[in-house]
Amino acid sequence: MMNKVLSLTVSLALLVTGSVSAKQASVLSEEQRAQLTQLGQTALSSDLAYEIEESLTTEVGARMIGTEGDKRAIKWAVEKMQSLGFDKVWTEEVAHFQWIRGDVEAKVLAPFPQPVKAIALGESVGTGDKAIEAEVIHFNTLADLEAAEADSLTGKIAFVSYRMERFKTGKGYGKAVGARVRGASVAAQKGAVGFIMRSVGTDDNRTPHTGITRYENGVKRIPAVALSNPDADLLVNQFKRNKPVQFSLKVTAMRNEVVTVKGANVIGEITGSELPEQIVALGAHLDSWDVGTGAIDDGLGVAMVMAATAHIGKLAERPKRTIRVILFAGEEVGLLGAKQYVINQKDTLANHVIAAEWDFGLGKIYAMQSNVADAAVPAIDELASYLKPLGVAYNTANQGRGQSDMGLVTDKGVPAMNFTPDGTRYFDIHHTENDTLDKVNPEDLQQNTAVYTIFAYFAAQADTEFRSSESASK
Amino acid sequence: MMNKVLSLTVSLALLVTGSVSAKQASVLSEEQRAQLTQLGQTALSSDLAYEIEESLTTEVGARMIGTEGDKRAIKWAVEKMQSLGFDKVWTEEVAHFQWIRGDVEAKVLAPFPQPVKAIALGESVGTGDKAIEAEVIHFNTLADLEAAEADSLTGKIAFVSYRMERFKTGKGYGKAVGARVRGASVAAQKGAVGFIMRSVGTDDNRTPHTGITRYENGVKRIPAVALSNPDADLLVNQFKRNKPVQFSLKVTAMRNEVVTVKGANVIGEITGSELPEQIVALGAHLDSWDVGTGAIDDGLGVAMVMAATAHIGKLAERPKRTIRVILFAGEEVGLLGAKQYVINQKDTLANHVIAAEWDFGLGKIYAMQSNVADAAVPAIDELASYLKPLGVAYNTANQGRGQSDMGLVTDKGVPAMNFTPDGTRYFDIHHTENDTLDKVNPEDLQQNTAVYTIFAYFAAQADTEFRSSESASK
Repeated sequence: MMNKVLSLTVSLALLVTGSVSAKQASVLSEEQRAQLTQLGQTALSSDLAYEIEESLTTEVGARMIGTEGDKRAIKWAVEKMQSLGFDKVWTEEVAHFQWIRGDVEAKVLAPFPQPVKAIALGESVGTGDKAIEAEVIHFNTLADLEAAEADSLTGKIAFVSYRMERFKTGKGYGKAVGARVRGASVAAQKGAVGFIMRSVGTDDNRTPHTGITRYENGVKRIPAVALSNPDADLLVNQFKRNKPVQFSLKVTAMRNEVVTVKGANVIGEITGSELPEQIVALGAHLDSWDVGTGAIDDGLGVAMVMAATAHIGKLAERPKRTIRVILFAGEEVGLLGAKQYVINQKDTLANHVIAAEWDFGLGKIYAMQSNVADAAVPAIDELASYLKPLGVAYNTANQGRGQSDMGLVTDKGVPAMNFTPDGTRYFDIHHTENDTLDKVNPEDLQQNTAVYTIFAYFAAQADTEFRSSESASK
Repeated sequence: MMNKVLSLTVSLALLVTGSVSAKQASVLSEEQRAQLTQLGQTALSSDLAYEIEESLTTEVGARMIGTEGDKRAIKWAVEKMQSLGFDKVWTEEVAHFQWIRGDVEAKVLAPFPQPVKAIALGESVGTGDKAIEAEVIHFNTLADLEAAEADSLTGKIAFVSYRMERFKTGKGYGKAVGARVRGASVAAQKGAVGFIMRSVGTDDNRTPHTGITRYENGVKRIPAVALSNPDADLLVNQFKRNKPVQFSLKVTAMRNEVVTVKGANVIGEITGSELPEQIVALGAHLDSWDVGTGAIDDGLGVAMVMAATAHIGKLAERPKRTIRVILFAGEEVGLLGAKQYVINQKDTLANHVIAAEWDFGLGKIYAMQSNVADAAVPAIDELASYLKPLGVAYNTANQGRGQSDMGLVTDKGVPAMNFTPDGTRYFDIHHTENDTLDKVNPEDLQQNTAVYTIFAYFAAQADTEFRSSESASK
């Protein structure tokens, strides 16, 4: 867990000390640079982020919005921020309708009877107690399903078998997720009574991937499930026999749109010593899907931003600006907490000087990109020089966007910082039962926490206006 | 799938041609060596073994003894052997009691309520419809549980958290499996009402590992389940809080010892042209656990020995001796088919000239060891020279035993050949839902099939008495 810390610490110290070119004045003072170096070393050797992660997954676990787990998570987050010495902690309520997952029983009836592992897509309707039995029609892609003739699926179950590709950037997700979001409605428009798809995932485990599905207005809502990759393979292999494939699908999910459940953004701050109204915002989402313990999605983000802020909070003095941690509610079901946040904070968004979130990836941060005023770019250059020893490459395009929830915040003109981690293995476990603590690499978590710590300290101390006058008026 | 075939084929051809030292006469004639080379090339480039594997897993799937899947598997195996041109195919019935898996609902109630993934150990009794709610007592090992005082577990659930270690040889299994086989009875003797353990497995998936548990006579039978590794971690982490751990366990398994179910050994031969009564025996087991599709355990073995025999069966002439494929019944529940076989074949075991099984591993065969008469060792040396180009090292200890089922056959004095494959990843998927076709590496399967093909051909053509006069009298 700590074996590589020493060498990293040494190289960080060397590079931070010598990092600012003589050609321009440093944004940070010599004393602040020394403090930043010390903070980086603390984060790289501290177990705090891992302890927060272990606490959240062991004491709370799954926390889908509105569930008992989510209620416990909110209480946990408030108490954890308080125990970490945050100056203010509060919650902002978020409402949603109730959805209960229930169970799925899925099996091939013919040509060769076999049970398959499937999971309801998020907020899918159920079948009731009686299974649907119908012929399955196979499509390689969502586009192929879209191209099917009107009414051609009447009484059938549609199956999309597209397999997500693995990339370090996670870019395969974009090509695959359309079927999950839209497939059920496209199939229903053509008469289908059920929708099944290959999981949006890169693993070969029989732990299918859930995630939100959307029903279009005016289209019949049909049950929608994802098969694990091995089960999708099995179904495809049965189709190769060129015989009709009959399927039985029972989904006991309940989408109770008349029942309101509550979640909450949990927000905590260490208050700035000179410019307390100016906010450096660090985000993650507190909710998770209900199937794992949300260790990665987004326990990692929760642990990182809380630990980074706590490290800075242990300094003898508060930095100039306020550092605010926002643990968003209901991200998984549609960025609900972020939507609520930009409404609630409408009048103070102009005081958010810069914002960053962690809600992707599993490995080390390897790249960063800002979105700030041209005049602030030299400051970002300086920040990049502090992060380079941690292996963070600097993409100077200056067109970054906040990740996930924070995208809604930066879309409102708040300057953005985006840190990109290695996502190679992320979609092996994303939205599955396998999203558990053992998938956390403590050393990667230390290093990524160091990145957020250095960023937050830098942004809170820098006498820099990151916002352009143009975006300030948005 | 075929990318490395050419280079392997070339090196095989070179080495086979020049493999026999001039110092001693070759067991095989020049013509036979050419045929053996050709057979090796065929097996290395053929898709047949993979096609058999794909057929078994796609058209049959799980096949626990006595289930509908097992009945389909028996029919499938008979028809497949016939279609592959075997000269004789027959079945031998095996009986067992009925066991129905049912479901497991397991959850931590306190200190932090969370559901956990668990699976009933094979042939465990159930709890009935009502869950057991009890405090859990944690033991690091089976030895620690054995050391607990009499009656110290009265009304409690015992939990053994020992984690299996990963080795190429799979030797970590032996140290871990004792808890699975004996833990429930040891716990019950001390008053426990339930037994839970960390899965005997090396993976980090939430797909717990089943496998047989044994109840000792005169000891109360208590429900026994395995948690996945991540869930066992969670439970251990909850224990670290030093608060009592309360657990709820519902197991709807049914062990119906008054109900008899049937399985069958499926046996097929290509009949020897000169010594038809002399049998070269190739084994695998046809049954599987009920949770995956038995692709690895033991679909790989089924595919290898059937394909190897079929390749030899396509030669213009039958080899001198008979090659017999035995697909054993009920291996998973206690080598039932093998026990029946040595009874049924009591009078012909002396005619089994040598025997080999595949029932372990996932990767390439990297070692071989015989157990034959001293006088037959030079013949094994020659065989080893034919297999060396395939990366098979020769362990000359000559103390091998038949794998799995075939161990019972070789224990009766039948000469043994043991081929050792890479088992590094085997216990990631062993006895789990993840035992599916996607885990099969087609290229490894080709190479391993080539090993069995060359072995079977060699043993069927060699004018060698593999059996010592001593063992013949056993």
